[in-house]
Amino acid sequence: MNSKIRTDLALEVRESFPEDDVEIKGVILTEDHDEKNNIKVSTVVIKDEKGAKAMQRPIGTYITIEAPDIDRADESYCKPVSEEISRQLKKLAGDLKREEILVVGLGNRDVTPDALGPQVVDNLFITRHLINEYGNEFQKKNHLGNVSAISPGVMAQTGMETVEIIKGIIKETKPKLLIVIDALASRSVSRVNTTIQLTDTGISPGSGVGNNRKAIDEASLGTKVIALGVPTVVDAATIVADALTGYMKNTGFGEEDIDKFITEIREQQIDNMFVTPKNIDESIKRISFTVSEALNSCFAQAM
Amino acid sequence: MNSKIRTDLALEVRESFPEDDVEIKGVILTEDHDEKNNIKVSTVVIKDEKGAKAMQRPIGTYITIEAPDIDRADESYCKPVSEEISRQLKKLAGDLKREEILVVGLGNRDVTPDALGPQVVDNLFITRHLINEYGNEFQKKNHLGNVSAISPGVMAQTGMETVEIIKGIIKETKPKLLIVIDALASRSVSRVNTTIQLTDTGISPGSGVGNNRKAIDEASLGTKVIALGVPTVVDAATIVADALTGYMKNTGFGEEDIDKFITEIREQQIDNMFVTPKNIDESIKRISFTVSEALNSCFAQAM
Amino acid sequence: MNSKIRTDLALEVRESFPEDDVEIKGVILTEDHDEKNNIKVSTVVIKDEKGAKAMQRPIGTYITIEAPDIDRADESYCKPVSEEISRQLKKLAGDLKREEILVVGLGNRDVTPDALGPQVVDNLFITRHLINEYGNEFQKKNHLGNVSAISPGVMAQTGMETVEIIKGIIKETKPKLLIVIDALASRSVSRVNTTIQLTDTGISPGSGVGNNRKAIDEASLGTKVIALGVPTVVDAATIVADALTGYMKNTGFGEEDIDKFITEIREQQIDNMFVTPKNIDESIKRISFTVSEALNSCFAQAM
Amino acid sequence: MNSKIRTDLALEVRESFPEDDVEIKGVILTEDHDEKNNIKVSTVVIKDEKGAKAMQRPIGTYITIEAPDIDRADESYCKPVSEEISRQLKKLAGDLKREEILVVGLGNRDVTPDALGPQVVDNLFITRHLINEYGNEFQKKNHLGNVSAISPGVMAQTGMETVEIIKGIIKETKPKLLIVIDALASRSVSRVNTTIQLTDTGISPGSGVGNNRKAIDEASLGTKVIALGVPTVVDAATIVADALTGYMKNTGFGEEDIDKFITEIREQQIDNMFVTPKNIDESIKRISFTVSEALNSCFAQAM
Repeated sequence: MNSKIRTDLALEVRESFPEDDVEIKGVILTEDHDEKNNIKVSTVVIKDEKGAKAMQRPIGTYITIEAPDIDRADESYCKPVSEEISRQLKKLAGDLKREEILVVGLGNRDVTPDALGPQVVDNLFITRHLINEYGNEFQKKNHLGNVSAISPGVMAQTGMETVEIIKGIIKETKPKLLIVIDALASRSVSRVNTTIQLTDTGISPGSGVGNNRKAIDEASLGTKVIALGVPTVVDAATIVADALTGYMKNTGFGEEDIDKFITEIREQQIDNMFVTPKNIDESIKRISFTVSEALNSCFAQAM
Repeated sequence: MNSKIRTDLALEVRESFPEDDVEIKGVILTEDHDEKNNIKVSTVVIKDEKGAKAMQRPIGTYITIEAPDIDRADESYCKPVSEEISRQLKKLAGDLKREEILVVGLGNRDVTPDALGPQVVDNLFITRHLINEYGNEFQKKNHLGNVSAISPGVMAQTGMETVEIIKGIIKETKPKLLIVIDALASRSVSRVNTTIQLTDTGISPGSGVGNNRKAIDEASLGTKVIALGVPTVVDAATIVADALTGYMKNTGFGEEDIDKFITEIREQQIDNMFVTPKNIDESIKRISFTVSEALNSCFAQAM
Repeated sequence: MNSKIRTDLALEVRESFPEDDVEIKGVILTEDHDEKNNIKVSTVVIKDEKGAKAMQRPIGTYITIEAPDIDRADESYCKPVSEEISRQLKKLAGDLKREEILVVGLGNRDVTPDALGPQVVDNLFITRHLINEYGNEFQKKNHLGNVSAISPGVMAQTGMETVEIIKGIIKETKPKLLIVIDALASRSVSRVNTTIQLTDTGISPGSGVGNNRKAIDEASLGTKVIALGVPTVVDAATIVADALTGYMKNTGFGEEDIDKFITEIREQQIDNMFVTPKNIDESIKRISFTVSEALNSCFAQAM
Repeated sequence: MNSKIRTDLALEVRESFPEDDVEIKGVILTEDHDEKNNIKVSTVVIKDEKGAKAMQRPIGTYITIEAPDIDRADESYCKPVSEEISRQLKKLAGDLKREEILVVGLGNRDVTPDALGPQVVDNLFITRHLINEYGNEFQKKNHLGNVSAISPGVMAQTGMETVEIIKGIIKETKPKLLIVIDALASRSVSRVNTTIQLTDTGISPGSGVGNNRKAIDEASLGTKVIALGVPTVVDAATIVADALTGYMKNTGFGEEDIDKFITEIREQQIDNMFVTPKNIDESIKRISFTVSEALNSCFAQAM
C-alpha cells in the first residue's frame, strides 16, 4: 500500500495491494451481494499483528456496505439500505435492545460534508432521560431502548480533543456501548456518499483527511466502541495523485517519478482541502436519515 | 415573594417584596447608573442563610445589567454594553487572562429564544487546542487566553443531565473556571432581551420556566462557576398571572382569589409554554454577539 | 365574535359565536370524525357576503383537520394524518397531478414556530427544472408532478411585501396553482401544532398575530391560491384575555369590564409577543414532515 | 487561454495568456497595491468585442481585490478589506446612497462554500419596508439607504431559473440597481476565500464550476447589475489538470498530451465535484461579514 494515499476505508486499503497478491497474511476478505437491491457487503477481518501491519489498521472487523444507487434513487431505496445496516450492526455489536448506548455524532455541523454525525444524532429517538424519570416498567411497556447521544463539535470549535469530551461523559453516564458516527474520506470518488463502513475497532477522527486526532476506541475509553462511517469527501491531494498515477503509469513513468510527484502535491496548499460533490446537502440529508433509521430500529425493543 | 411566580432574575425576586420592606435581612441591594449610555447595574448580595431563604436563592452575588436600548438601538450601542459586561465579569471572577476557562453554552440551538448559549459559544475565540499544540511561548506572543467551550444541547436531545456532561468534561480537561451561558425567563416583558445577569452561584437550567434540572455550581462540579444569563422569554403562566393580578387588585379581589386563579392557570396547558417577542431572531443575534465580544475581550491578554 | 380576539382559524371564529346561535346565515359547518385515528375534520363554508361579514373572513371553504395525537404520538401516526391532508387537499383543489404548481413557504426560517413553511418546502420533491430540461416524456416515465417552490423570507428580512415577490415570480413562471404554507396563530393552546387548516381563499400573512400584510389570494395574484396553515403559536394578548375572560365571567364581571381589560392588555408590551410550547422544535419538524409527505403524494402521478 | 480551465475570475483568464503577450487587444490591466494592509487591486477593462472574444467575457470592468491575509488574520483585518470593497464598489456603481437597491444572495444556504450570498444578505440592514411605511422624512432623519434583499435558493431547491425569480421581483419592486452576491470558483487554491471580484457585467450563476445557468445581467433584466463574487471553491477537474499540467510541462510532455489528459479528467466523475478548504465554515463567516459591512456602509447616508 502506498502510505501517501489517504483513505478511511479498510476495503480500499485492501484493494490497494496488487491484484495477484490475493492472500495477505492475517487478513480475510469475504463478500456478499444482494443483487435485487444492488447492495454489496464486503467484510475485511484483520486477524493478527501481521495483518494489522500490512493493513496499517488495528486488529478487528471492518464491514463495508456499498449501495451505489442510494445517491440517485428515490427515497424508497433508503429502506433496504437501512435494513442492511441494521443487520450488519447486529452482527458486529450483538443485540442492542435494552443496552445502554451512547451515540456520538462526530464532525462539524457547519461544514456540509462533515455534518453527517450531528445530523444522524438529530434524528435519533433519545430515551435515557425518560427511563431515568419513569423507570423500567415504562421502558418495557413502550419497547424503548436506552439511548443517549451527543454531537460535541470539532476541536477548532471546542478547544478539546473529542476523546477527552467522550471519556469524561462515559465516566459519568457509564454506557455499555459507544456508537460513533463520522464522515470519512475515501480514495475513490464513486464511493463518496454511497458506502457505509462499520467496524469494532473504533475511530481516529480526521485520520483519513490528514488531521491526526487521538483515537476513540476501547483502549482509550474502557468501553466497547462501534464506529459507523460514511465517506463524504475525497482528500484533494489523493484525487490529484490518483488521477496522475493512472496517467503516468500508462505513459511510462516509473514508481519513483510518481512518488516524487505525490510528495510535491502533498507539500502544496491543496493538502488542506477536500473534494466533495456539488449536491452534498441532499446526499448528507438522505444518508443521515438512512443511518438514523437503522439505529432507531436496532435500539427499539421487539414488541 | 409569591412562590408561584417564576423568574430567573434575583433582581425580580427582590422587587417582588413590598416596597416598604426596604431592608431584607441578609440581602444587600446597590445600584449604579451610567446615564450617558442608559445602562443600569443592580447588585444583589445574599449574605447569609436568612437572606437565602427570603430570596429562595443560594448565597452569593447577583449582578443585573439593564440596557433597555439594546433591543432597538443600532449596532454601535453593543459596544458600551459589551464593556459593561466585561467590567462586571472581572469584578465577579477576577482577572480572566491566562486562566484556563471552559465556557458552556446551555440551551437548545433549534429553539430561537433558547439558542443564546450556543450562539455565544459560536462567536468565541477558542484557543486551548492551539496552546496545547504550540505551547506557552505561542500563547504569550499572541496574547491569547486559554479557552475551551462546548454547547452540549438539552436533555431532550442528549438523554443526559447537562451537569453529567459538564462534570465529565471537567474531570478530563481540568479548567480553573467555568462560565455558563444560558437563556433565562424573566417576569417582566420589558426585561426580555435587554438584561444580563451575572452570578457566582451557578445555575439551575430551566428553573425559571419550570423545568427542574440539576444545578450546575461549584458544589456539584468542584470548580468555580460563573453564570451569565439573559432573559429571552417570560413564562406564559406568569404573564397571565401578572396581568390578572394587577387587574384583580384594582377591582377589589383579595389575595386568596388571586392565588386560586394563579393555581388554576398553572394547571392548564399553558404551563408548558413560553412567551417571546416576534423579532426574537434579531434580538438573540445581537445579544449573543454583545456577550461574546465581552467574553473575548476578557479572555485575551493585554498587549 | 369579539373582534379583539385574534385567530387564523375560521373554525375558532365560528366557535366564538354563542352556542345557541346554531345557524349563522350564510355559513355552513359540517363535521366528520375518523375515530380509529382520532382525526376530526370540520368544514366551514362561507357562502355569501352575509356569512363573510359575520365571520370576518372571505367567501370560501375552510377545512380544519384536528389530530390531537400528532404532537405526542410516535412517527407512525404521521401517515394517517398525512393521508387525510392529501384527501382534503384534493377535495379543495382537484387533481394536482401534472398541474404546474408553485409552493410558497411563508415565514421566518430563523424563528422556530415561524419556520413551518420553509421546512415544508425543504422536504418537497422539486421537479419543474427537470421537466424543463428533460421534457414531458421524462415526466411521464417517472410519474413526476411539475413542482416549483420558494421560501422568500419575511418582510423584515427582504424589505418587500411577500405578495410583491410572489406576484413577480408568478408572472415569469406562470404556475396554474399556488399553494401557500404558513404558520398560524390559534386562540386555543390545545390546537397549537395539532391542527391543519386548508382554504381556497388565500391568506393574509401575519394577520392572526396582528401583523397586517397584504393578502395573498386570487384577487391579488390572478392565480388560484390554496392556503395550508398550522397554528404554531397563540397571540400573547389573546391567551391573557382568554384566561381572564373565563375567570371574570365566573366571578360576575360584565362584558364591559372584560372588554376594557382586553383593551388594556392590547396596549401593553405583550401585544408584540407570541406564546409557543417549549418543545416547538420537535413539533415543527414532525408537522412539516407530515405536510410535505401529503403534498409530495398529491403531486406525484399515479403509476 | 485554455478553454478547459474553469474560473470565474477575469483576472485568472488574463493571467492564463503567455507572459510575453503583454498587450491583448481590447483589454487593459491596471494594478494598485496597498502595501500597509497587503491588499492588491487589479482592474481588467474589456473595451471591445475583440477583447471580449479573447477573454471569453462580456465587455465591462472587472475589479479584483486580493487580501491574502484575510483568511488567517484576526478580525481587525476585516476593516481595511471592507473599506477597500466599499471604495471599489463606489467606483463601479457610483454613489449608492438613497438609491433603491435590491441585493440578491445567490447560492445554496445548505452547502457551506455556496452559502456566501445568503450569509451576506443575512447581515444586511434592510430598510425598504421602513421607508415605505414611515416615509422619506424618516429615511432622511435616520440616514437610511433604501435596501431590499432576497436569497432565492438554487434551481435544485426552487425548480426555477434564478433569473426568472429576480426578473419577476424587479418588475414588481422596480429597484434602480441590482447587486448580486455569489460564491465563485477560482483556478488557484491561493485565491480561495481571499479574493473579491466586482464587475458591472452581471453574472452567470455556476458558470465557473460548469453549471450553465442563464445570465443575470442588464440585458436579461433591464436593470443595472453589479456582481460581487468571492471564490470559495476550485473546480476539482481544474485542480487535477493544473497539478498535472505543471508536472507534465517539466517532464517534457507536449500541449497535445496535456489537452488529452485534461479531457479525460473532465469525463470522469470528478467533473461534478468541487475542492474547498477544511475550515470553510470559518472563512465563509468572516468574508460574508466583511462584505456585508462594506455594503451596509455604502448604503447608509452620510450624516
